[in-house]
Amino acid sequence: MDAARQAVLVPTTVDLAADATVIRGYDFNDGVDFHALLESFSRTGFQASNVGAAIVEIKRMIEAKKVPLSDEKRETLAQIRDKEERPLDSCTIFLGYTSNLISCGTREVIRFLAEHNMVDCIVTTAGGIEEDFIKCMAKTYLGEFSLKGAELRAKGINRTGNLLVPNDNYCKFEEWVTPILDQILKEQDENKINWTPSKIIDRLGKEINNPESVYYWTHKNNIPVFCPALTDGALGDCIYFHSFKKPGLRVDLVEDLRRLNTMSVQSVSTGMIILGGGVIKHHICNANLMRNGADYSVYVNTAQEFDGSDSGARPDEAVSWGKIKVTAKPTKVYGEASVIFPLLVAETFAREHHEKKTTLK
Amino acid sequence: MDAARQAVLVPTTVDLAADATVIRGYDFNDGVDFHALLESFSRTGFQASNVGAAIVEIKRMIEAKKVPLSDEKRETLAQIRDKEERPLDSCTIFLGYTSNLISCGTREVIRFLAEHNMVDCIVTTAGGIEEDFIKCMAKTYLGEFSLKGAELRAKGINRTGNLLVPNDNYCKFEEWVTPILDQILKEQDENKINWTPSKIIDRLGKEINNPESVYYWTHKNNIPVFCPALTDGALGDCIYFHSFKKPGLRVDLVEDLRRLNTMSVQSVSTGMIILGGGVIKHHICNANLMRNGADYSVYVNTAQEFDGSDSGARPDEAVSWGKIKVTAKPTKVYGEASVIFPLLVAETFAREHHEKKTTLK
Amino acid sequence: MDAARQAVLVPTTVDLAADATVIRGYDFNDGVDFHALLESFSRTGFQASNVGAAIVEIKRMIEAKKVPLSDEKRETLAQIRDKEERPLDSCTIFLGYTSNLISCGTREVIRFLAEHNMVDCIVTTAGGIEEDFIKCMAKTYLGEFSLKGAELRAKGINRTGNLLVPNDNYCKFEEWVTPILDQILKEQDENKINWTPSKIIDRLGKEINNPESVYYWTHKNNIPVFCPALTDGALGDCIYFHSFKKPGLRVDLVEDLRRLNTMSVQSVSTGMIILGGGVIKHHICNANLMRNGADYSVYVNTAQEFDGSDSGARPDEAVSWGKIKVTAKPTKVYGEASVIFPLLVAETFAREHHEKKTTLK
Amino acid sequence: MDAARQAVLVPTTVDLAADATVIRGYDFNDGVDFHALLESFSRTGFQASNVGAAIVEIKRMIEAKKVPLSDEKRETLAQIRDKEERPLDSCTIFLGYTSNLISCGTREVIRFLAEHNMVDCIVTTAGGIEEDFIKCMAKTYLGEFSLKGAELRAKGINRTGNLLVPNDNYCKFEEWVTPILDQILKEQDENKINWTPSKIIDRLGKEINNPESVYYWTHKNNIPVFCPALTDGALGDCIYFHSFKKPGLRVDLVEDLRRLNTMSVQSVSTGMIILGGGVIKHHICNANLMRNGADYSVYVNTAQEFDGSDSGARPDEAVSWGKIKVTAKPTKVYGEASVIFPLLVAETFAREHHEKKTTLK
Repeated sequence: MDAARQAVLVPTTVDLAADATVIRGYDFNDGVDFHALLESFSRTGFQASNVGAAIVEIKRMIEAKKVPLSDEKRETLAQIRDKEERPLDSCTIFLGYTSNLISCGTREVIRFLAEHNMVDCIVTTAGGIEEDFIKCMAKTYLGEFSLKGAELRAKGINRTGNLLVPNDNYCKFEEWVTPILDQILKEQDENKINWTPSKIIDRLGKEINNPESVYYWTHKNNIPVFCPALTDGALGDCIYFHSFKKPGLRVDLVEDLRRLNTMSVQSVSTGMIILGGGVIKHHICNANLMRNGADYSVYVNTAQEFDGSDSGARPDEAVSWGKIKVTAKPTKVYGEASVIFPLLVAETFAREHHEKKTTLK
Repeated sequence: MDAARQAVLVPTTVDLAADATVIRGYDFNDGVDFHALLESFSRTGFQASNVGAAIVEIKRMIEAKKVPLSDEKRETLAQIRDKEERPLDSCTIFLGYTSNLISCGTREVIRFLAEHNMVDCIVTTAGGIEEDFIKCMAKTYLGEFSLKGAELRAKGINRTGNLLVPNDNYCKFEEWVTPILDQILKEQDENKINWTPSKIIDRLGKEINNPESVYYWTHKNNIPVFCPALTDGALGDCIYFHSFKKPGLRVDLVEDLRRLNTMSVQSVSTGMIILGGGVIKHHICNANLMRNGADYSVYVNTAQEFDGSDSGARPDEAVSWGKIKVTAKPTKVYGEASVIFPLLVAETFAREHHEKKTTLK
Repeated sequence: MDAARQAVLVPTTVDLAADATVIRGYDFNDGVDFHALLESFSRTGFQASNVGAAIVEIKRMIEAKKVPLSDEKRETLAQIRDKEERPLDSCTIFLGYTSNLISCGTREVIRFLAEHNMVDCIVTTAGGIEEDFIKCMAKTYLGEFSLKGAELRAKGINRTGNLLVPNDNYCKFEEWVTPILDQILKEQDENKINWTPSKIIDRLGKEINNPESVYYWTHKNNIPVFCPALTDGALGDCIYFHSFKKPGLRVDLVEDLRRLNTMSVQSVSTGMIILGGGVIKHHICNANLMRNGADYSVYVNTAQEFDGSDSGARPDEAVSWGKIKVTAKPTKVYGEASVIFPLLVAETFAREHHEKKTTLK
Repeated sequence: MDAARQAVLVPTTVDLAADATVIRGYDFNDGVDFHALLESFSRTGFQASNVGAAIVEIKRMIEAKKVPLSDEKRETLAQIRDKEERPLDSCTIFLGYTSNLISCGTREVIRFLAEHNMVDCIVTTAGGIEEDFIKCMAKTYLGEFSLKGAELRAKGINRTGNLLVPNDNYCKFEEWVTPILDQILKEQDENKINWTPSKIIDRLGKEINNPESVYYWTHKNNIPVFCPALTDGALGDCIYFHSFKKPGLRVDLVEDLRRLNTMSVQSVSTGMIILGGGVIKHHICNANLMRNGADYSVYVNTAQEFDGSDSGARPDEAVSWGKIKVTAKPTKVYGEASVIFPLLVAETFAREHHEKKTTLK
């Protein structure tokens, strides 16, 4: 009994009160004040605290952008840059997202970031490109995760989670993109253009000419969008069909790799905001290895580390590789981006944007 | 090639436009308006849509409470009730949560619900009881998931996820609860009280006499709190130690089972809000089987169905058992409650509460 | 460029070759030898390595059982024991599992362990008790996770993951258990028996008298089975209905708590094998806190730590609480027990059992 | 009470006994017979049943390979094929895996499949290529998931889950690959070779000349290996550095896309075995859309559908897109491939291989 009591009632030998945050959640007696609620998240524990930390980390990125460049540094950077590069500031923010985040309504949040030039480089997958354009032509609908595949196929309806995309949307996309592919091929042959994923995405962004599109704005604001596996989706299907009618188009990976890595190397500091896993996560991290690690990092995903995948790896794994600086304070929010990302943007980019010009609701 | 084109370009044979919600996310050009943002979640897809659906479902519970009782029904119900029962309304809301939600800052949100009498019955685990009282005596701090167990043990610091609880807190709890156990045992012997978990919790809520405590308010508002495995935690440790000094205390499960099931059977309609899994989830569902299913249901948890656990089961599994009505529109939000639950409460109970009396910020 | 090369090509300054295991998977050119395959898991990485470590840890438990007790220690232990206690050995193995593992075919594996007296104490939930008995009366079938709840309810078929349990099975269970409840109540009144969950389970195990039942064997081998929330399921439903016809039965938690904790305190060493989370996981860990931590621990579950739940907590969290010894080498296998647990048993308890008497296939 | 009894004791109106599999696990009293154990998995429920179903599905692929080709079909296929294509059979098996499965010991299992020509097409990510070659030069070690990133970085040790890869390994890789890149660039310029990921991988497989390498065997057996994001990893780093010394290399995606899709279109039937998610999963599925769906499909991964990602999508989502045939019986095993995949191979490809020539242990 005494031994049991001693085990249970071990005394505490350190005082946490000095440094540590006390856990205490939001008191709704204070009203429904979301800004205060989200500030309380840091003191709430579990993933609420990680949401709080992610907000702080993104604010650090925004502040880092405001650090003035020395004349010397500005000159050095200007020398090694192409003229097409974006204007310089002191923090390059890399935004990565998987295609589902364009399929769902997070697309409008991403578009807001691109529209107002809040990020400097985007990495996504093929669906992350084409679904944005397709949404300019036809709609995506809310369905249910449990709808039956065979019944949907019979109706020509594709399911993406709880979203429904009529297959006609892809037919419209093919109609729109095929003449552009004709043109691209012609320019390859005539102007010796070495087409890369980022150049094709930029061209499509120009052609769509619709301010609802993310890539309309990346084109306008000269934000490079990388997508190494560009052919893995509907655009690839169109390129495949097109290649039988008019063969010869090539899409080169190496020039884009140079462009992405060079952005990382040249930057004064960098931030990574990565929604989801797979190629988009690794590609941004790998580019940041070129500079011995990102300065600021936020991951939002639902993957776990136990399977050894890069998708589920915690930021601390990237530290071991030199992809995140050993001195950084990266955060991973374990959560689904359609819920988490709008909250992060609301308290950072959007709040800052509107505070500049108007009172917040 | 033609076969491939036909497969890829299958025509759509139904028009979704008539009924289905179009996916379109929040436009931050409209300002940082969280109420509008959360309303947009229904149109955002994935878990944002499930958050949206959960808000709608909780609002249904609140509306169901307002449906007037017929005189006849009131009389019938009054007859079969103990005088200690809560005042009648037309919807009984069962709130379940695992102990971690009292360890983290969600506790303050739950206390708000209990304080304002917004839920009618609570089911939790042992830690969900004792951590609330312990927080009235000493603090819980924010730590990190990666802190080393052996180092913490050497300092007498316990870790719960990314929270740190000094072991001294449990020593203080033992000091507080032991004299109450003396008293409880005395009343068992002298007054023939058949102690149950819910009666003990109610007594502790009376003794703590601190409005920061959830169970201060459940005592005051006569909200029964069930916890079948009450002995599985620090309170159990205290009862165990106490039983050597003063043996004889009994804690009965059967009387509480009757009380819980009878609440379900008597209700005009019921709602379930269940945060996390395990016993608390099943116990509420099982009680609702007694009435052939809950009318309204919201689950918030991180568990998955693939392992066949009740924790991860979707609401539709409960439909097969008769625990949720076949006509109901239950929702599961796949997410971590410290983030999700405050959002749900903000848009439902708290908004309704403050709209009654003041303008919202 | 040079900076980038330096970042990428950082030199390694330690030699891992001396101590660390080289990763190298099984070579199927060596034949389909599962024993060799499972031995190779330790060198395979990710969860295969955790399966390998779990096998080693369970073997440590089995070896610890064989350590002879000193006469002195034997005498001390004998003094503080009830005569009903199990015979002494040097390691007490606590096995915990959630109810789904009795619903699925893992039940037969657990029954094998109980039959051959390989574990010393079991903790489970209500379904983990009643489903075992129900399977002696009627069958559980394979279905699909996606079957519709409303359609199943209309047919009186309950779904547990991808299992189907006809509701008639529960009717048969009620018929069987109700007369036993009559008897139990009678004994309470006449013999002043203080019924606890473990005593009721033992009695049911005696009554079922069927060697297919886990609890037939725990009764026969005097293995205590704890289930603090015994009323949370079909048995509870039966007790509830029974209580209207014949009120007065009480089921006490405190005596069981003493019994469980005392088993832990008295043990020379302890091992924990915990399949799943929730109360069963915490209850075994909490009992082991009474002895300042378990010596050997294996968790198998699908839960994650990010939500701060005890279910998902890594063993290292239990170390901070003193529930696992700071010197222990506990393992968590992130995986689904219906696949993982038979593999673990095959390479440990079952292999040892058959090696004693026969050649293995 | 009567209403409650009626709800609980709903009668069953259908008899499952006729068609459905009875749940009954393996009885270890029958000995440690893994073949029998794995056969029992189909009757065990939960993921054990999915492992059982996956074994059946892979056996269907193997059987489909044995269906004789008609002379007519053989001729048609021969006409549209390049001479470099693999010999024809009646089922094309696509194997996809993420890079972690080459980092861990699953690599040796994959090498066995490639060595014995058991799969026809591979899709992986950049790490899935380079880690295989690196393992021919230096070793990967077992570590722990919890090792600290900053400490590892200081020692030049990279962590991949619970694996450790000394950074020197990557230095060795660069030394080996750089002269090959020289050669490749030379051949581009001199022989007008349009390099694609699959051609580069084939060349590296030839150069490594080591039977421990997966890609040694894919080269030897003419199994195409696709990797659209080939530049996203250490090979990309080398190409990036090389491009400053010797600029001009291009790596084209379009020719590989044609090659992959054409393999799908030409096949008499197809099977997909996909370990993990992301690009490798979608790329194989998308290629199978070209033929209106794969005939046989097995997914093994840890991702969940709730986030709307393709990674977590169930096979039934692919049915809606036409990527899996509406008549197929695809299976997803929710589990970690380092444990699951060797079990699947043991009972299918390996068992078949050894049954042909020897008695199995």
